[in-house]
Amino acid sequence: MDDLLLAFDFGGTKLTAALTTISHIATGQRNWLGVRRVFSPEDGGAKYDIETMIRLGRELSGGRQVTAVGVSFGGPVDFVLGTVRLSHHVPGWENTPLRALLAAEFDAPVCVDNDANVAALGEHRFGAGQCCDSLMYITVSTGVGGGWALNGRSWRGHEGMAGEIGHTVVDPAGPLCLCGKRGCVERLASGPYMAQDWARGVRKTATGKMVAEMAAQGDEDARRILRRGARALGVGIGNAANLINPQLFVLGGGVTKSGDLWWDAVRQAAHETALPEVHFEIVPARLGDDAPLWGAVALLMAEGLIG
Amino acid sequence: MDDLLLAFDFGGTKLTAALTTISHIATGQRNWLGVRRVFSPEDGGAKYDIETMIRLGRELSGGRQVTAVGVSFGGPVDFVLGTVRLSHHVPGWENTPLRALLAAEFDAPVCVDNDANVAALGEHRFGAGQCCDSLMYITVSTGVGGGWALNGRSWRGHEGMAGEIGHTVVDPAGPLCLCGKRGCVERLASGPYMAQDWARGVRKTATGKMVAEMAAQGDEDARRILRRGARALGVGIGNAANLINPQLFVLGGGVTKSGDLWWDAVRQAAHETALPEVHFEIVPARLGDDAPLWGAVALLMAEGLIG
Repeated sequence: MDDLLLAFDFGGTKLTAALTTISHIATGQRNWLGVRRVFSPEDGGAKYDIETMIRLGRELSGGRQVTAVGVSFGGPVDFVLGTVRLSHHVPGWENTPLRALLAAEFDAPVCVDNDANVAALGEHRFGAGQCCDSLMYITVSTGVGGGWALNGRSWRGHEGMAGEIGHTVVDPAGPLCLCGKRGCVERLASGPYMAQDWARGVRKTATGKMVAEMAAQGDEDARRILRRGARALGVGIGNAANLINPQLFVLGGGVTKSGDLWWDAVRQAAHETALPEVHFEIVPARLGDDAPLWGAVALLMAEGLIG
Repeated sequence: MDDLLLAFDFGGTKLTAALTTISHIATGQRNWLGVRRVFSPEDGGAKYDIETMIRLGRELSGGRQVTAVGVSFGGPVDFVLGTVRLSHHVPGWENTPLRALLAAEFDAPVCVDNDANVAALGEHRFGAGQCCDSLMYITVSTGVGGGWALNGRSWRGHEGMAGEIGHTVVDPAGPLCLCGKRGCVERLASGPYMAQDWARGVRKTATGKMVAEMAAQGDEDARRILRRGARALGVGIGNAANLINPQLFVLGGGVTKSGDLWWDAVRQAAHETALPEVHFEIVPARLGDDAPLWGAVALLMAEGLIG
């Protein structure tokens, strides 16, 4: 039997486990031997816990030894200690020593990191960033966050806080963010904030998706707010390019489905902000729904746990 | 005879060569076996060229074999190719293959990098950043530039352009920078630009140093401009902290002599801009006038050319 790899994607609404092998990876196959998934109950009742993770992993491995376990966790993680700080969506995960628990259960080395860092590695190894030395992955969704892959490894910063492009300031005269500052990228570019700014104008509730749809239909307020958000993100990207000079920015998350108006404004603002000698591309994420699972495999490779 | 190390500091107004040994470094001694220096003539006539560098190096080594040669170059360098792109102050250095020329002359491995990257390594190894994994060095002088030391190595970016904090945008409604953008850190925080903004107010020519002196004497315009520049730099530092989460920012250059008003404003704006979970310190450079020379030695160590 080939070396088995177990990957977990711990998201806000679902937990997925998947199984592959090192020879699958080596031959470039992007499919799974098996996948198990549980969804969080919509009534807000009991959600997935560590026992759920272990059960899914056991069902997949069926008693066979796994070589390594990679976890993409949707929430802050202390990578060095291998502990989950908390989940913002699933209660009961505060200060969970997830790496140690899984390592004891599966008798194998385990890597756990937050979803943005993992997505950066996944896009670098298997997605839009192949053949690239350095990239920043940015998710533009309910929040705006990011992760770095530099020289094929995660750059997490000295306390694991690197990648917080959402709370870089691009307009000190801009609107107030929940973080207390004005004109953060997240305050201008995230879906809920764009929806809030648009809804205030038209006096109804809205979503980021609605803003994009109304903008596509020619609604001037929606276009203005969508473009403002895209430009704010673009200035943040241009600043990051001047500071770190990566080859590539890979953008994922729901807001990136907002169409050409959005993409054009992001790219234009980014290239206007970066020095002319600072070259980079901005591309959509390529891995889709399985991104965190492939990222978890890429994490095991980047950390040297598998070939 | 111990292994000799030759270090060069190619600045805008002077060229310095210095000699030390590996055992000096190993025993923590910060002095030189010998130093040679030439100044550029004030009449703008002939300036130091590659032959001058070779002559200074030969005078120091006195025919003995050197183990390695490190160069801090004040201007853009292609580190991978080992070529100088140009000097902004000394004509005739366009596209000079400096590494190859020195390697052929001294029959030894040579590293050449720009002064900001070299200063970052120097402060990391010998100065304010000892015992630190990750830092950004920022020079605040006639321009504002920087360099990264991450995991004890330079991070140069994919085309060597990393560290350009001076051209990150912190106020899109700010004054116009020579680079064409509004509200760059350099436009607000560099000495000549602060002087220009102050001089316009009081209708005379000025220098950055004068702005700091007038601010210390209580001149309200000078205080306002100095504080505005310091805050712009602080926002740039806070943004960089959110993106990369280094332990330390080390600040050098003439403007950092502007006193507590300036340092307090830089630190306050930086910590206001960074997320509360993003911790860092901002400290003055420690190496002083010899910083580029010690940086050139640190570069040889970081690149593995000497123990």
